[in-house]
Amino acid sequence: MLDVLRVSSKSTPNAVAGAIAGVIREQGKVEVQAVGAAASNQAIKAVAIARGYLAPAGLDLVCVPAFVNIQIEEEVRTAIRLIVEPR
Amino acid sequence: MLDVLRVSSKSTPNAVAGAIAGVIREQGKVEVQAVGAAASNQAIKAVAIARGYLAPAGLDLVCVPAFVNIQIEEEVRTAIRLIVEPR
Repeated sequence: MLDVLRVSSKSTPNAVAGAIAGVIREQGKVEVQAVGAAASNQAIKAVAIARGYLAPAGLDLVCVPAFVNIQIEEEVRTAIRLIVEPR
Repeated sequence: MLDVLRVSSKSTPNAVAGAIAGVIREQGKVEVQAVGAAASNQAIKAVAIARGYLAPAGLDLVCVPAFVNIQIEEEVRTAIRLIVEPR
């Protein structure tokens, strides 16, 4: 099963980028999920940083954004999910 | 030269998605630039929507995020640039 990294507005992009790079190295692919504009912004920054972490290994990361409905405390919210994988 | 679509926090993701799809159809590739969290969020939503617009034509859009320094009224700001192209 594919790991899902949940990113919040308080996540630091560098830390998320490290987690993205780790999962990509182990599993080849990762999903990053964010709810809200601030969280989405941290997620996309993290992918940009992770590209730099993995470029020396010859990995050219791309991301595929999609909407996903998730339930938070009985409320349905729309999250952004970024599927991140080498090109 | 590659077209750059500038997205603001007030851009509507559907309209930006239409512009992305149009440039991809004509030029095969487009760059989407956003300054600030709200604008980045609109940009990434627009890419997710544009994927749906172009999927029927067999195009599987991916995006490559990068940081870029831009000058706005004599101040240097860091923007997020998404290079959007078919896989």
